[in-house]
Amino acid sequence: MEDKVMEKVMEEVMKKLGKETEAPAAAAKKISSAGITEFVGTAIGDTLGLVIANIDHTLHSFMKLDPKYKSIGIVGARTGAGPHVMAADEAVKATNTEIISIELPRDTKGGAGHGCLILFGAEDVSDARRAVEVCLKELDRTFGDVYANGAGHIELQYTARASYACNKAFGAPIGKAFGLIVGAPAAIGVITADTAIKAANVDIVGYASPSTTSYSNEAILFISGDSGAVRQSILAAKDVGVKLLEVLGNEAAPSVTTPYI
Amino acid sequence: MEDKVMEKVMEEVMKKLGKETEAPAAAAKKISSAGITEFVGTAIGDTLGLVIANIDHTLHSFMKLDPKYKSIGIVGARTGAGPHVMAADEAVKATNTEIISIELPRDTKGGAGHGCLILFGAEDVSDARRAVEVCLKELDRTFGDVYANGAGHIELQYTARASYACNKAFGAPIGKAFGLIVGAPAAIGVITADTAIKAANVDIVGYASPSTTSYSNEAILFISGDSGAVRQSILAAKDVGVKLLEVLGNEAAPSVTTPYI
Amino acid sequence: MEDKVMEKVMEEVMKKLGKETEAPAAAAKKISSAGITEFVGTAIGDTLGLVIANIDHTLHSFMKLDPKYKSIGIVGARTGAGPHVMAADEAVKATNTEIISIELPRDTKGGAGHGCLILFGAEDVSDARRAVEVCLKELDRTFGDVYANGAGHIELQYTARASYACNKAFGAPIGKAFGLIVGAPAAIGVITADTAIKAANVDIVGYASPSTTSYSNEAILFISGDSGAVRQSILAAKDVGVKLLEVLGNEAAPSVTTPYI
Repeated sequence: MEDKVMEKVMEEVMKKLGKETEAPAAAAKKISSAGITEFVGTAIGDTLGLVIANIDHTLHSFMKLDPKYKSIGIVGARTGAGPHVMAADEAVKATNTEIISIELPRDTKGGAGHGCLILFGAEDVSDARRAVEVCLKELDRTFGDVYANGAGHIELQYTARASYACNKAFGAPIGKAFGLIVGAPAAIGVITADTAIKAANVDIVGYASPSTTSYSNEAILFISGDSGAVRQSILAAKDVGVKLLEVLGNEAAPSVTTPYI
Repeated sequence: MEDKVMEKVMEEVMKKLGKETEAPAAAAKKISSAGITEFVGTAIGDTLGLVIANIDHTLHSFMKLDPKYKSIGIVGARTGAGPHVMAADEAVKATNTEIISIELPRDTKGGAGHGCLILFGAEDVSDARRAVEVCLKELDRTFGDVYANGAGHIELQYTARASYACNKAFGAPIGKAFGLIVGAPAAIGVITADTAIKAANVDIVGYASPSTTSYSNEAILFISGDSGAVRQSILAAKDVGVKLLEVLGNEAAPSVTTPYI
Repeated sequence: MEDKVMEKVMEEVMKKLGKETEAPAAAAKKISSAGITEFVGTAIGDTLGLVIANIDHTLHSFMKLDPKYKSIGIVGARTGAGPHVMAADEAVKATNTEIISIELPRDTKGGAGHGCLILFGAEDVSDARRAVEVCLKELDRTFGDVYANGAGHIELQYTARASYACNKAFGAPIGKAFGLIVGAPAAIGVITADTAIKAANVDIVGYASPSTTSYSNEAILFISGDSGAVRQSILAAKDVGVKLLEVLGNEAAPSVTTPYI
């Protein structure tokens, strides 16, 4: 077999492993005929949005849910946690729901990062469904500053006003500008963290490394502060991070969707 | 390279990644000439069965084994934990062995679930060997209700009478009908858990999510009760789970081997 | 598509997943034009070597670093932890640096083992850079006794005189001969551990299994003692381990680079 063909195959395989997804529209069509009432939609990153109108009350306690939430919204994915938490943050701002829990499995289908399982709580199912819909819709945006190749990924997230999802998952101060910078493999994340904190006058909210984040191969900096400074800090880190990632693997640009920061 | 070929390659790659294995017969033939006395056999899921007649007594304490077990049986795999625990459950029923430990690495070769490492203890090596043999043989059955595609998997397990392996790994009440329902990615597992518990009058033994199960991207419900109810509960969950999995990825049916539930 | 072609593709894919890397020379050339001062070099296993001359003092405390280290050296990889720790051990012997931290993400790009993140501390950036350079250079050697196929890997490491990296990561007694034996999937590691300890008169320093090592699918034995005995113990384990690995998958020999033990 020729090397050229082999190369092409490998490239496609790696791409698939990292970014495999299915057109949400097509998926929605399939499911509607299947008639599962819990289904809300799908999105990039093997993301699934679901809702349970009346979660069984015995399951409730095993899941350690507050009994006041009759309805739950569910957003889960194989690939991505940051994009989903940021999207969930918009969802709680826009709806009458609360974040019940955010869990980060070690996943990305052989990649260096996480998948996610996010639960929204609501007293009414229409609120839970609305939160999931907003979250799925936002994902196209929040995957905008994710750069990936076969060696790893750089992920940047920014919000002018952090809300409850960012607070729950990352300890972000509510109402303030907030950003996160992920570098994978983790060695890159150490450099992007240092670059970010030196680039502008921002506060460190937290720092995560493999042993503190589900054993993913990432180092992550969480920052807060003046919105201009947070953005400046993120963009400086991005430049360095993407360059280092491309030293290790193939081209990582363009980003997964359209950059928003 | 044409898209058609690419698609076919991707399909095969994904299949291999999830289900790669080798014909046990061929493997056994290879090994017998290698002459490793510890070898017992191989099975689906990159499963290896081994036995140590007289485990070194200093290693004994580092492995935190009860000194009364001179011989240990070993079953380990890259892909699968539920099938192996259920198979081990039959093995302890059928032999004079005990379950020493069950560990669940985060694996499945880039998939969403676990591999496993199961140790049987015995005073006599023939007992340990017999337990491993029974376990390997049962695996073909216990992989019978595993549905997988590139997006994740649904796994169902059932026994009319749980024994010590199910008790050790999952807290199953011994002697009662027991079942487990795995959904991956974990979002599907939340729905299958809720579906299962609503479908029949069963008791919840436990619920596991990524942060409580080696960071796999699974949510798992463990149930116990009347055998008809447990089966009914499992089958209801299967229907919904497989449909949701197929919304996210390609077809997940037929199951890995032949359904037994 | 013919089976032959498919087989070839699978083989290549598996190889790439396990051993993908890029020629360091080419990478270094790319980066030098990018002009990132933190870059030191790359190596096998998607390994990246970096240095920070003056790590930001606020980040310092979030990373829980001793404030006396102004400069840090960073070595991180997607594939491999043992080879990197052994290489780091030589680096601390050869330079005026200390090991700050060693973290083992669950990685190897869908394989059964770890990646790593190793931080060196130094008061002067030239020391940190030198440590990273030595570490990267040693990697070609320390990958010498790694045998891998699609089913898992066997890794052997040996040093005549353990230093601070081996002590920090594995509890090796400083100044004594030290070795480690990794078997993946973990079932193989149990056998190689037992084989090693029976093959020569060595002391067990530790034993690690999935639940004690970032949920990788490995069992690992750490041994210490007389240098001849440690080597003999390792080589005995290698023979059995590689044979078992080849029962489970395709050929695992030759090793990733050139054997040194």
